[in-house]
Amino acid sequence: MTGMTRVTPLSAPPDERWARAALCRYCAPGDPSVAALVRAKGPVAALADLRNSAPLRERFEAALVDRDLTELDRLGGRLVVPGDEEWPVRLDALATAPRVGGRRTAEPFALWVRGPLALDDATARSVAIVGSRAATSYGEHIGGELAAGLAERGWTVVSGGAYGIDAASHRGALAVGGRTVVVLAGGCDVLYPPRNATLLERILATGLVLSEVPPGFASMRERFLSRNRIVAGLARGTVIVEAGPRSGALNTAGHTLAVNHPLCAVPGPVTSFSSAGCNALIRRDSARLVTTAAEVLEEIAPVGEVLALPLAGPSGVRDDLPAIARRLLDAVPSRRAVSADRLAGKAGLTVPEAWRLLGVLQDHGLVEHAEQGWVLTDLGRQPSGAAARQAAAGDVGADIPGGGSGVAD
Amino acid sequence: MTGMTRVTPLSAPPDERWARAALCRYCAPGDPSVAALVRAKGPVAALADLRNSAPLRERFEAALVDRDLTELDRLGGRLVVPGDEEWPVRLDALATAPRVGGRRTAEPFALWVRGPLALDDATARSVAIVGSRAATSYGEHIGGELAAGLAERGWTVVSGGAYGIDAASHRGALAVGGRTVVVLAGGCDVLYPPRNATLLERILATGLVLSEVPPGFASMRERFLSRNRIVAGLARGTVIVEAGPRSGALNTAGHTLAVNHPLCAVPGPVTSFSSAGCNALIRRDSARLVTTAAEVLEEIAPVGEVLALPLAGPSGVRDDLPAIARRLLDAVPSRRAVSADRLAGKAGLTVPEAWRLLGVLQDHGLVEHAEQGWVLTDLGRQPSGAAARQAAAGDVGADIPGGGSGVAD
Repeated sequence: MTGMTRVTPLSAPPDERWARAALCRYCAPGDPSVAALVRAKGPVAALADLRNSAPLRERFEAALVDRDLTELDRLGGRLVVPGDEEWPVRLDALATAPRVGGRRTAEPFALWVRGPLALDDATARSVAIVGSRAATSYGEHIGGELAAGLAERGWTVVSGGAYGIDAASHRGALAVGGRTVVVLAGGCDVLYPPRNATLLERILATGLVLSEVPPGFASMRERFLSRNRIVAGLARGTVIVEAGPRSGALNTAGHTLAVNHPLCAVPGPVTSFSSAGCNALIRRDSARLVTTAAEVLEEIAPVGEVLALPLAGPSGVRDDLPAIARRLLDAVPSRRAVSADRLAGKAGLTVPEAWRLLGVLQDHGLVEHAEQGWVLTDLGRQPSGAAARQAAAGDVGADIPGGGSGVAD
Repeated sequence: MTGMTRVTPLSAPPDERWARAALCRYCAPGDPSVAALVRAKGPVAALADLRNSAPLRERFEAALVDRDLTELDRLGGRLVVPGDEEWPVRLDALATAPRVGGRRTAEPFALWVRGPLALDDATARSVAIVGSRAATSYGEHIGGELAAGLAERGWTVVSGGAYGIDAASHRGALAVGGRTVVVLAGGCDVLYPPRNATLLERILATGLVLSEVPPGFASMRERFLSRNRIVAGLARGTVIVEAGPRSGALNTAGHTLAVNHPLCAVPGPVTSFSSAGCNALIRRDSARLVTTAAEVLEEIAPVGEVLALPLAGPSGVRDDLPAIARRLLDAVPSRRAVSADRLAGKAGLTVPEAWRLLGVLQDHGLVEHAEQGWVLTDLGRQPSGAAARQAAAGDVGADIPGGGSGVAD
C-alpha cells in the first residue's frame, strides 16, 4: 500500500518556484492579501512588488531563500508549487473559503515536502483525523482504530503530528502498513513536538512530512492555526475524534466546513470534557456522528465509490442496494463465514473494493465480521421481498435499530 | 412543585367506564382491531359485540370486572378514560400512529391510575427518560442528572420503573422534589421489578403509578412492549439515555417517532455497547443529540415557551434573542454572580421561567453557572453590535464552538 515513488515533473518554471519559496520565508503563512496579489500577478511579479515596498525592501535577502532551498535539497525534500503535477489541486479551494475564527484564509504559497510519496496521489483518497493534544485513552484508542480501518481500506491518514489524537492516528495508519501524511506547523525538518520525533521519522520513511514554511522555521502559535487549514484542505474530509469546548481541533473543523469538505465527529460521554466539542458539533448538525472507519467513508468517500445507502429511508435496505453491493451480498454464503478475499473473487471485485462494500453492508446490518470471516446477519438473510412488504406497511420500527426486535425493556 | 391534588370530574358515563374496564381485562393491551371497534361504536356496544362472539362468549365474567374496579378503589386509585377531564388527550395520537417494530398500535382502553396528581396536568409538561436495564454507571448518572434538571425546571419525568436508566431517572426527579410518573407493564399494584418496590412506593406518594391492565395482572413480555407506547405517548418527547443495539428502549424510540414527538438521545463512547443504540439514532438523524436538561427542553418544550435560538445561524446570537431573554441577559450584572431568584425578580419572570431561560442562555454560551450563582461569559458581555459585525463578515468560525478561540492544537 505504501512506497509509491514517482519522478515528479516540475511543471512550474524555476523563477516562480524561487519566488514562492521567498514568499514562504518573508510573508505570514497564507497571508490573504499576499495570496490575492500572487493570484492576480503571479508569484514573480507579486514578489517584485513586495520587494519594492516596506518592510520587505529593507529586510529581503535573496541568499537566505537560496539557503532554504539548498537545505531542503540536503534533506531530500522538494518544493511543491501550484502548476506542479504533484500539487494537490484540492488546496485551491482555500483561496475562496470564508473566514474561520475571524480570520481570512488563503492557499499556501508552496509546500516543503519530504517523503517517498507523491503528494497528489497520497492525498487523493485521504481523511484528516485530528483532535485534542489532551486526549483521553478512549480518544487515542478510537483515533488509532479509525486510522487503521481507513488505512486498511487504502485511504491515507492526514494529521498534524501533535500529541494525543494526532499521534494516535498516525500510529494507527502505520500499524497496518498504511499511508500517513503529517502537516507540521514549523519547518519540515523541525520534528515537533520533540517526543514525537521517532514517530515523525517513521512517517518520513514511508509517508510524507510537509510544511508551508521553510526548513528551520520554529513551530509557533500562529503557524499552528494556519497549519490547520492545510490539514483540512488536503484531505477529502475530516474526523474530529476528541475536542474540548475550545480546542484547536475545532479550528480544523471550521476550516473543513469552510472548504465544504465533509466533517465527522466521534461522540463521547457527555461527562467528558474532551468530548464536549465533538458532541456540540454533532448536536448542531455541523458534523456527522461516526463510530467506525466504514461510517467515515460513507460520509467522505466520493459518491459512486462508496454506496450512499438510504439510512432511514422508506423502503427495504436490500432493495436499495446498488447492483454491485447486491452481488457482493449474494456472494456471502447463508450459513458459513467467508474471507473478504474470497468474496472479492466471487463478486468480481478487487479486495479493497470488497472491504469497502462489506463495511457499508455491515453498517446496514446485513453482514457481520465473525472470527472466521464475513457472515450474513438475520437481516442479510431476509429475501428482498420481505423488506419491501414491511416497508409498504409503513413500519416505523424498521427505521430504528432494534426497533423491530421485540425485546422487552 | 408536587402535591397537585384535584377532584377529577368523571365526565365519561359509568357504563362506558365499566365497559372500558372490561376491555382492559379481556383484550390484549392496545389491540388495534378492538380499539377500532371502540372508536366506531363506543366502548359499550364494542364490548357487547365482543361478548357475543368467541372466544369471549365462553370466558366473560362480569363479576371479575367488578372485582377489578373494587380492588382499584381499595388501592385508592381511579380509572381514567377518554372523556374524563383527567384523560391525557395526547395519547389519542396512538390511534393513528404507524406501525412500530412490525406491530400496529392503538390508544389504551383506559388507564388504572394511583397517586396524588391529576394525570393530564402532571403530563402536560413531561419528558420520558428511558434506557437499558443493563445500564452503565455513566448512563445512570446522566439519567439522574437530566431528570433532576428537568424536574427543577418544573417538568415531569415519565419512565417505566425498570432497573437501570428508568430507575435512575425516577430517582433524579424525586431527589429534587420533582414530579415523576411510572407506567407499569403489569397492574398498578404489581410493583415490578421487586427490587424497585421502595422506589415505586415513593412515586406513589408524590407522583403517579399507572397501567393499562387491571390490578393484579402480571408484568409479561407483551405488556412491556405495549407499555412503551404509553410512555412515548404520554410525554411531550423522549430522551434515550443508553440503549444497546437491540434494546427495548429503541422500541420506545420507535413509538416516539410514530406519534411525531421529539426524540433525543444521549451520546456515549463508541466503545460502549450500552451507547450503541443512542449513537446510531443520532447518526441516522432519528434523534437529536442532547447533553443537558436545557438542551432537552430546547427540543421538547413547546415553541414560544422555550426559545428556539438559531444554533448555527448567520447572525449574532444576542441579536436573535427574543425580548424576554435579552431582558434576562441584561439583568445579569457584568462582573458579579447572581441567583436565579434575584434575576427572575429583576426581569419580571417567575423563578421557573428564569431557570428555563438561563438554561437556554447557558447553552448559547452567554451565561454560566458559577458557585455563587449565574455570571456572564465573555460572549455574554459582548455588545450585540460586535456579534452583528462578525456575522456580516461571514465568519465560519462563529458557527463552531471555539472556532474563533485561536487556541493552537
